[in-house]
Amino acid sequence: MNYVTACITVFNDGDDELIVRARGNAINTAVDMVQLLRNRFLKTVEIKDIKIGGEQVTNDEGQKWTLPTIEVTIVKDGRQK
Amino acid sequence: MNYVTACITVFNDGDDELIVRARGNAINTAVDMVQLLRNRFLKTVEIKDIKIGGEQVTNDEGQKWTLPTIEVTIVKDGRQK
Repeated sequence: MNYVTACITVFNDGDDELIVRARGNAINTAVDMVQLLRNRFLKTVEIKDIKIGGEQVTNDEGQKWTLPTIEVTIVKDGRQK
Repeated sequence: MNYVTACITVFNDGDDELIVRARGNAINTAVDMVQLLRNRFLKTVEIKDIKIGGEQVTNDEGQKWTLPTIEVTIVKDGRQK
């Protein structure tokens, strides 16, 4: 819910576009948040682009693995296109 | 890993395109799986489209809520475009 507020603040400050980034288990939170924002709070918001990828991470013991990532670009007012 | 095998089987059976669908916590598994498939097993695979959405679910006690969903369309050989 804090992320929804953060997005609304960004849009209210005059920006027209923002990118929601998440990795690992937070990916579903990001998707959920974007849906909540669009369906409940700012109905004009549209998804412009979605990218998925992977990010190499290393833990304290030197083990390396790849975490899935997502980047969702949303625009404040999809009707302005 | 089973999902990676399933995708490879679908592609080997002659289909050129498939859709990976997931909801809730499985979303990050789906993203991870698509990355693993592309980076390790079938390097020609490309992501054609990604959609996110929500699905209304009801539990045994009649409570309703919306689960986030993702649909990733992948093609066997992105070079064929």
